[in-house]
Order: sequence, then structure tokens, then C-alpha cells
Amino acid sequence: AEIHAKERRLDEASRLLRTKERDLYRLEKRVVQLEEKLRDRLSLVEDRSDLPMIYFITPTHYRPEQRAELTRLSNTLRQVPNLFWILVEDAEKRSPGVAEVLARSKLQHAHIFSLTPADKKLTDKDKNWKLPRGVEQRNAALTWIRTNLAGIQKGVIYFGDDDNSYDLRLFDEIRAVKKVGVWPVGIVGSLLVETPVIGAEGKLTGFNSIWKPERPFPIDMAAFAVNLQLILAHEDVAFTYEVPRGYQESHLLSGLGISASDLEPMADHCSKVYVWHTRTEKSKLTATEREKFKSSNLLAVERDSVGAV
Amino acid sequence: AEIHAKERRLDEASRLLRTKERDLYRLEKRVVQLEEKLRDRLSLVEDRSDLPMIYFITPTHYRPEQRAELTRLSNTLRQVPNLFWILVEDAEKRSPGVAEVLARSKLQHAHIFSLTPADKKLTDKDKNWKLPRGVEQRNAALTWIRTNLAGIQKGVIYFGDDDNSYDLRLFDEIRAVKKVGVWPVGIVGSLLVETPVIGAEGKLTGFNSIWKPERPFPIDMAAFAVNLQLILAHEDVAFTYEVPRGYQESHLLSGLGISASDLEPMADHCSKVYVWHTRTEKSKLTATEREKFKSSNLLAVERDSVGAV
Repeated sequence: AEIHAKERRLDEASRLLRTKERDLYRLEKRVVQLEEKLRDRLSLVEDRSDLPMIYFITPTHYRPEQRAELTRLSNTLRQVPNLFWILVEDAEKRSPGVAEVLARSKLQHAHIFSLTPADKKLTDKDKNWKLPRGVEQRNAALTWIRTNLAGIQKGVIYFGDDDNSYDLRLFDEIRAVKKVGVWPVGIVGSLLVETPVIGAEGKLTGFNSIWKPERPFPIDMAAFAVNLQLILAHEDVAFTYEVPRGYQESHLLSGLGISASDLEPMADHCSKVYVWHTRTEKSKLTATEREKFKSSNLLAVERDSVGAV
Repeated sequence: AEIHAKERRLDEASRLLRTKERDLYRLEKRVVQLEEKLRDRLSLVEDRSDLPMIYFITPTHYRPEQRAELTRLSNTLRQVPNLFWILVEDAEKRSPGVAEVLARSKLQHAHIFSLTPADKKLTDKDKNWKLPRGVEQRNAALTWIRTNLAGIQKGVIYFGDDDNSYDLRLFDEIRAVKKVGVWPVGIVGSLLVETPVIGAEGKLTGFNSIWKPERPFPIDMAAFAVNLQLILAHEDVAFTYEVPRGYQESHLLSGLGISASDLEPMADHCSKVYVWHTRTEKSKLTATEREKFKSSNLLAVERDSVGAV
């Protein structure tokens, strides 16, 4: 009888074991599914210590479209793991409208500012190529990096304007840069695609640029990323007003001691377009609205304009 | 001896059971964690049957910036649960460049097309307000909806252009629309914010629009969403070339039997700006590039322009 009792308990135990095993199998499948979903489709996963950080430097200036642009850009950036956004306002101080977008993005970030001197500032009437833009702001970001990231081993720096359009695949390319990576950029320099040219052996043989092709590096600010170590090792390298139009990229890369043969062609041998140089039209406003915009800040303007009037 | 043997097997079985239970507990915790992460931070979670579907209608036409714009928009939309993207090309057939962006977005979608008749089509030289844009494409989407969604109970329809900028909070507003919801839109109609005006009791009392304020509904296409039932119940309501400039929104809403008092003020009593009417500049291209662009499609142009030349 005792043997029978034990046998019943054994049967019961093995039945339970089989159930648990089925449950385990089901749950394990579910975990794999969920992890794949997180990996492939997400987003703001927490930091992954195995991945280098991307330091994404965005100069931004006050204009009616500023909050729209930063909101749209943050919608893209928030899907990238290990991205640190260095947002640099062309302003005397941090503005609440920009701070609000940054806070909502939930991204790791530095919110800094650096005012362009009056004599270097474009007016509404100037053609936008008359003076280089973003010089002060990108330099402020470089200074911030050298001050705050000394000793950090893994990282890549990218200059990402607030009106460009980014395919999420760009960020995998940026992250893989060893020294200086380069890739094609859509709709820039009067071309549908401005790109490094790759020869038969996968080596960079030149550039297809038609605008000032004599530049040492005839590429756009969106076309390259630089390893953090290179920036840290060259303390004095910065952007400048002292070079001709279109030479900012060449000035920086030459300063870093880079020659064309050092460039790493990325984005599948420069065969894919993952970033486009889109530009947003200036909004047409009434004179009253333009005054309101100038005398306040965008967050306040939005708050005051709307609702119970 | 047999009893001892059984007992050993029983001990072994209960040890196994305890291990499995620990594994189960660990996995269950992991599943909960992952599901929370997906729910809170994601994105493209699978459908949630408790949420109404948002049918997001985007007319789009071939231009150098098209892939950039759609990629950027898809980066926003892919973070919205229960969103169905109805993308309507102004074309004779589906184009591979658009299909590629759609496929990569992983969004539920309908990819349809409807060509604007030659006499209704803007040329590069026309001011962009000369003719209404998107009439054929939005109507094709309405037809698609009436054909494919008859019998569907819960859903809201929104007309979302491919160059506007969207705050993710807009989608919660759209989803909550019972009949017709309205909200402020940034940088449109010569204003920083064009908005319904809300009186002391939270009721809509008018509009702040200064452009054609005499329109029955002086609002932008981005300023409202319509419940699916209303579209299904009014089979013949559509956009048209037969109304003056700026009257598309009024024509649609009047056709649906809506009066101003039916409008639901959303976005915290119309006190928040969650969508901006941004416009992207036309790219300057060389004559050769423009020809290349016209004689091919953007995906092919990108592929042919880049890499080994």
C-alpha cells in the first residue's frame, strides 16, 4: 500500500513537472519574442554598457519653427540606445521652450548655450550661406566634451543639425566608427546624393561633389562622425570663421591630422543614404506675430496664444 | 528497498519541481519587466484591442525630399500604438522608394495611389496655393476606408501631411475623439498658433484665425480628427476642387453634418500645441540631377548615385 501511495505521488509529481516544463517552454518563447521586439523596434532601452555612446551635437537657434523641429528630431533620437544629446542654443541663456522638449525626450543630454557675436550673426535678410552657422555652438560642444568626457574610452561624435532627416540605421553606422567614418548624404550640394566614391577594392578613391570639389574634404557636416579619442587627443581643434565658405568640415578634419586615406567608408561601402540635408521653410507671419515672437519665448508664445483668449 | 527507491525518486522529483518553479518565477518576472518596458516606452507594441485605431491619412507626391520626409515621419508614427497608416501616392502606381520606407516602418498600413489629373496638378513654377493639394489622394483614402472598414466600430481618422511635425501626445488626443475633435496648430495661417478659442465654461466660442476668418470652419487640415463612424455614415462626403481656396476643411465638416457646437476642444482645452505646419524647402539641384530625378525613381536614384561610381 505504501508503495502504491508513493507511486501515486510520483505520478502526480511527474505530471506537475510536465506542466511546469510546458509553462517554462512557453515563457521562454515569450521572453525571446519580447527581447527581439525590444531589440529590433525599440527605442529608449536603458544604457547598454557594451555599446559606445553616440554624442549627438545639435546647434539650434530661436525661430518660429524651433520647437517643431526639436520635437520632431527628438522623436527620432529617443529610439536610439546609448545616445547622448548635446543641444547647444545660440542664445544668452537656456530657453524654457528648448528645455521642455529635452525633458520630454527622456534622453541623456547636456543643454548648453553660446551666443553668436552680433557681427557674425545672419539677419533674416541675409542669404543663409553668407556666414558659417553653428561655429560658436559646435565649439561650445567640443569644449563641453573635453571638459566632461576626459577619460571616457568609448564614444563617437556626430554633428546632427536640427532640420536634417535621419534614418535610424544611421546610428548603427555612427557607433561603429573607429577613427573618422564617412557616408552619403541626400539632397545636398545641388546633388540628389553627395557621396564618397568607392573603388573596386572597397577603398575610397574620391568624392562626387560638384560644389567646391577642390576642398580637402568636400563633404557636408552630416557626412561624417569622429571617434571621441581623436577629439580628446587634439585639444585645440575647433571650427572657425577664418576659413572660406564650405571649409568647416575640411578645417576640422585636417586639424585632427586626418587624411583622405584615413576615412572609413561606412553605410555598406557608401551605397546607402541614411541622412538627408532637409531644410525647413521660414514661416510667414504677420508683423504683430513676428513682434510677439521676438519679445517673448516660444513656449510662452504657445501658451499665451492658445485656449481661452 | 523498493520503497527507498521510490522515495529517492520522489525526492529527486520534488527537487526538480522546486528548480522549475524558481525558473518559472524568474521568467515570469522577466516577462512582466519586458512587457512594461514595451508598454511604457515603445512604440510598435502589438495591437491593443482596448484602444481605438487611428487611421492616419498621408497624401504624398514624388519629389527629391520625399524619402527623407517619409522616413522622418515614420520615425514618429512607429512609436504610436494602434496606428494604421494610409499612405496615398499622387502617382500612377506604387513606387518602390515609398514601399521600402513603409516596409521598414513595420506599421500596419495601406499603400494606395491616385493620380492628380494634369489640369489640377501644380507645376514647379506655381505658387503652392494655386490649386488645392491632396484632393484625389485624400478621397482615395476615404474610399479605401469605406470599402475596407465597413463594420469596424472603433476608429478615428486624421489627415496628417508628410511634412508636418507631430508631438507624440497628439495621438492620445486623436484617439479620444468622439465625433470631431479640434486643437491648436503651430505656425500656420500667418500665426504662431492658429486655434479654436475657448470661453470661460470650456466651450468653443470661436477661432483666432486671421486668414479667411469668414469660413464656416477656419481651421487647418492638421487641426481636427473625425470619428470613423461619421465617415462611414456619410458615404458621399469627400474633398473637391469646386470650393474656394481654404474651404476643403469646411466643405468636409459641413458635409458630415457638423456645426461649430459639435466640435470637441481637445489638447487640454486647446491650450497645448502638439502639431506644427512645417514646410520643407524645395532642394536646389543641377539640371542634370533634376533630369535624373525625373527619369527614374528615388530609390533607384539613391542606389545609382552612391558607392562605386
